[in-house]
Amino acid sequence: TTLGQARPVVGSHLRVGEGLLPTSAPPPQLLHVAIVCAGHNSSRDLNTLVKSVLFYRKNPLHFHLVTDAVARNILEMLFHTWMVPAVGVSFYDLEELKPQVSWIPNKHYSGLYGLMKLVLPGALPPDLARVIVLDTDVTFASDIAELWALFAHFSDKQVIGLVENQSDWYLGNLWRNHRPWPALGRGFNTGVILLRLGRLRQAGWGQMWTLTATRELLTLPATSLADQDIFNAVIKEHPGLVQPLPCVWNVQLSDHTLAERCYSEASDLKVIHWNSPKKLRVKNKHVEYFRNLYLTFLEYDGNLLRRELFGCPSPPPPGTEQLQRALAQLDEEDACFEFRQQQLTVHRVHISFLPHEPLPPRPHDVTLVAQLSMDRLQMLEALCRHWPGPMSLALYLTDAEAQQFLRFVEASAVLSARQDVAYHVVYREGPLYPVNQLRNVALAQALTPYVFLSDIDFLPAYSLYDYLRWGGGTRRTPGKYVVARETSGPHLVLCPLLLRRYHEWPRGHAPTDYARWREAQTPYRVQWAADYEPYVVVPRDCPRYDPRFVGFGWNKVAHIVELDAQEYELLVLPEAFTIHLPHAPSLDISRFRSSPAYRDCLQALKDEFHQDLSRHYGDAALKYLTALQQPPGPA
Amino acid sequence: TTLGQARPVVGSHLRVGEGLLPTSAPPPQLLHVAIVCAGHNSSRDLNTLVKSVLFYRKNPLHFHLVTDAVARNILEMLFHTWMVPAVGVSFYDLEELKPQVSWIPNKHYSGLYGLMKLVLPGALPPDLARVIVLDTDVTFASDIAELWALFAHFSDKQVIGLVENQSDWYLGNLWRNHRPWPALGRGFNTGVILLRLGRLRQAGWGQMWTLTATRELLTLPATSLADQDIFNAVIKEHPGLVQPLPCVWNVQLSDHTLAERCYSEASDLKVIHWNSPKKLRVKNKHVEYFRNLYLTFLEYDGNLLRRELFGCPSPPPPGTEQLQRALAQLDEEDACFEFRQQQLTVHRVHISFLPHEPLPPRPHDVTLVAQLSMDRLQMLEALCRHWPGPMSLALYLTDAEAQQFLRFVEASAVLSARQDVAYHVVYREGPLYPVNQLRNVALAQALTPYVFLSDIDFLPAYSLYDYLRWGGGTRRTPGKYVVARETSGPHLVLCPLLLRRYHEWPRGHAPTDYARWREAQTPYRVQWAADYEPYVVVPRDCPRYDPRFVGFGWNKVAHIVELDAQEYELLVLPEAFTIHLPHAPSLDISRFRSSPAYRDCLQALKDEFHQDLSRHYGDAALKYLTALQQPPGPA
Repeated sequence: TTLGQARPVVGSHLRVGEGLLPTSAPPPQLLHVAIVCAGHNSSRDLNTLVKSVLFYRKNPLHFHLVTDAVARNILEMLFHTWMVPAVGVSFYDLEELKPQVSWIPNKHYSGLYGLMKLVLPGALPPDLARVIVLDTDVTFASDIAELWALFAHFSDKQVIGLVENQSDWYLGNLWRNHRPWPALGRGFNTGVILLRLGRLRQAGWGQMWTLTATRELLTLPATSLADQDIFNAVIKEHPGLVQPLPCVWNVQLSDHTLAERCYSEASDLKVIHWNSPKKLRVKNKHVEYFRNLYLTFLEYDGNLLRRELFGCPSPPPPGTEQLQRALAQLDEEDACFEFRQQQLTVHRVHISFLPHEPLPPRPHDVTLVAQLSMDRLQMLEALCRHWPGPMSLALYLTDAEAQQFLRFVEASAVLSARQDVAYHVVYREGPLYPVNQLRNVALAQALTPYVFLSDIDFLPAYSLYDYLRWGGGTRRTPGKYVVARETSGPHLVLCPLLLRRYHEWPRGHAPTDYARWREAQTPYRVQWAADYEPYVVVPRDCPRYDPRFVGFGWNKVAHIVELDAQEYELLVLPEAFTIHLPHAPSLDISRFRSSPAYRDCLQALKDEFHQDLSRHYGDAALKYLTALQQPPGPA
Repeated sequence: TTLGQARPVVGSHLRVGEGLLPTSAPPPQLLHVAIVCAGHNSSRDLNTLVKSVLFYRKNPLHFHLVTDAVARNILEMLFHTWMVPAVGVSFYDLEELKPQVSWIPNKHYSGLYGLMKLVLPGALPPDLARVIVLDTDVTFASDIAELWALFAHFSDKQVIGLVENQSDWYLGNLWRNHRPWPALGRGFNTGVILLRLGRLRQAGWGQMWTLTATRELLTLPATSLADQDIFNAVIKEHPGLVQPLPCVWNVQLSDHTLAERCYSEASDLKVIHWNSPKKLRVKNKHVEYFRNLYLTFLEYDGNLLRRELFGCPSPPPPGTEQLQRALAQLDEEDACFEFRQQQLTVHRVHISFLPHEPLPPRPHDVTLVAQLSMDRLQMLEALCRHWPGPMSLALYLTDAEAQQFLRFVEASAVLSARQDVAYHVVYREGPLYPVNQLRNVALAQALTPYVFLSDIDFLPAYSLYDYLRWGGGTRRTPGKYVVARETSGPHLVLCPLLLRRYHEWPRGHAPTDYARWREAQTPYRVQWAADYEPYVVVPRDCPRYDPRFVGFGWNKVAHIVELDAQEYELLVLPEAFTIHLPHAPSLDISRFRSSPAYRDCLQALKDEFHQDLSRHYGDAALKYLTALQQPPGPA
């Protein structure tokens, strides 16, 4: 019997024709995986772990995620927008389960979350008989079905499958007076666990571990390795419960690991476990190999995992059928095919990619909303200096770029210091920049009553945040009009000025009337006109941007039309302005400038927008079409 | 016997402790792979194929590449700089082998190259007994050792392993008068072949296929599917030669494929074959699945495949030992650790990433040399308009960005039309922009006697190319001084002017003396001064850039010092100038501006540069150090 070596067995009796059809197999089994996940950073780890599992899997999977509110928020959005076929997700509230373990004193870096694995038999659905439990810091290098298959080797009494601990910790000889929890030999590591839930429940697991833990805690001050100490103490007492698993299923890269004894002769590592608090920076002579494996999935384009499984009929993820129908109806010969395809693309979204701790809500607070891609990253520091308030930024990145972004923020003292800037990663897919989809993601995540809808190459005046937020006591505050009017009556829009842009695109800012603005002491009302695209402050519940406008052109103009159609009042504030920074034209703009087809498509999109506008607003919308057909008047 | 399904076999007798050590296996066998590859596009395909093979492999591999001069040039550099452990490469000259097959009339899109597979038994080393032969348009989804293992199932007489053809082509009923070459049933596809070379040679393979082909060509006008027709005709005559392989080892995605009969019930596809001339655009109801698999490797970061194999002692690739020693000597606590690590990084280089057909060499011709990353792609069209001559450009990209770049060029009429622009992809690795390494790659690939060393955000004057190339007959040509002086006596440098830059960084251009330049009618000589960094035209064999300068700062200055130290004469040409385009600061510059540590490291690098200079040039180099220590004089 060779462990961890799998070679295909092929009969030499094959004849022509037989080769075409493989032996048919029953549809692959649904496998269940449970993971405890809390906070922003663990959510990123979980994303990487899930990518590695999905890459190799050939079975439908169901993830049971025990999460805090932060992780749930992030992961619900992630899985919802990921739309991976044959993947189900359930969430369980970590806060509800906490009291079951919070009485246990614990010194491990994973905190209470590790201990949560003890209560899974009670927390997961009662009809769930088997589950693979994973730490967020493991990476798969093989098909998880191979791990699941090890359940078949459990004897009737065995209920927990574990890999031996690959360090001498539990031998208790690491230093003088080192007193670890009791364990069988080297003990077991709980980064990867196979649980027979049904049998555990029958065996009274909850009582079993509670008793053991209580007894040990009479003489030991706390758990050192969280749940792992308790699992080992229970197993020491009931060795018949455990089915040891081959070491390759949990290759442990802690600091003084003995893992080399496992892998030195194995060519086939199945699961890598980064069980050192140093994670990727752990010192280990083969760490480069493991790191590459990890980086593979860290940077892997998760969109590519949206592939269907063969021989695995499963209901499509919610929304996909409708989407596929819409995509199928597109005409590939249509010159605007690329635009329409881009509009229909559902982007994977990872909200709050970095730790984010918004301040308690303040009345009249304003969040700056903007979007960017990699080539504008260097704007972030200046933006942080100019806008001391909350921001909600959508970043359009590949999985690999998201990692570069992470390093960029870590290296910047200015950015690291800010807890009130939320970064939402929207993963790239398709050839055109989905500017309005990005804006909508950032807008939806703003938490303050007001939002300042900006663009990444604009720097707000230093005073703008305080000015908009109604003064802060010391300043003259025409901004009060904003707030006063908002609560009752019509909506309202501010128009911070764009000095530089005016010269480039006068029609886009003509109604602001700069001559008047320069002299104004109080806010004044202006009328909408064709192609007007001021930067505005609006209540958070304002209309969303129209996602049909992708790439360059008319994306903001359409939004202002929508605001006007909904009778938002357009007010120019005398002290508000924002500064345009020059930059090289983006790829999408270059394309627009050089391609007549691009301009034709934009015209087609505008026409469709106006048709929809008429459908929604009736005759009132006629003015927008009429205005567009007239040449611009004197500004 | 189940084909294509591999589950681990695990004994249930495992006890604690046994799990730690897997059964030890003999060191993995060296596997041989032969591929025919010609031209720029096939070289890119081969890169993707190799990435898919390396991703899953656990054995040492040797690639036998039958190439034309273009592919050899590209692939030698690629493998040399890739430095993948346990991978060997041998090249075989396609031109030498061509006469053996060029007599065969052939209508297939793969041209003569497909036929080349017939002559492999004679072309590969006589002691090589087995080889896997692959088309460049296949993608692996599994470990190639599993394919190699099928050799074990060959009977004594079987010499060729093949998968059945997954179309009705050879049944001869596709259209009226469709007369395919003879085949057994549906025949076999030759995208994936297992060859027992020793036995083929013994069996007189060369004569065997030549006779069959000659005979068939008496009644058939040409091969339709190149080598595949001939392999099938031989097999029809000698059915005992073939070992049919399971269909999953060559899932064929041609237009009317029957492949679904293979994969509809298999969860385990091993090799995908894009055997339609439409490649990824083939219509097939599951093509999305296959495309994702292909894109996975197309965009996969090849650097991650530089990992060592476990249980596989193999000599490290040339140069790695020295490199690893140097890396090991670096001090992680050194503030400049990142800089030094970046300098030592060997970047994977894919020269001539796109088809490139340089004009025949002309005397005094000048190649524009520059480097860029993704955020400057939109400069390329303008650059092409301004510089009608040859260019050699190094692009610093990830594997995924290289594909975006490809689509960008395809979408641009201006760029697609140019055959004299060579694009060399240098794959990203590390946090700092290796500006001088990039310049050296582009410089090394210039084919003309002179090079104009430029930067991507500078547009040459429209006339500059002709002016530098000695006038083209119609123009006043002070440039002739350049050429006249170059052949004998000291080297020589031109200093095209940078109008805009002068104001930003006057010290960098002071010696050019703009007042004099504006009036000058003939070239004039200037003296080197501290921090001088003009843009220059020099003979191609000029000194290389110093790769220690990474990121921003002093990278060009050091090169000019080196030119001066080697007694290049500095001449300013009256009509030459180039225009700086404004752009957002790059990430590296932002970092430089905000980080004192960055500036300190740059100073350390400068100091080391001067020490090396003294070592090379002795007392003569003292002036550079002295100049640096003095405050700048009046410009």
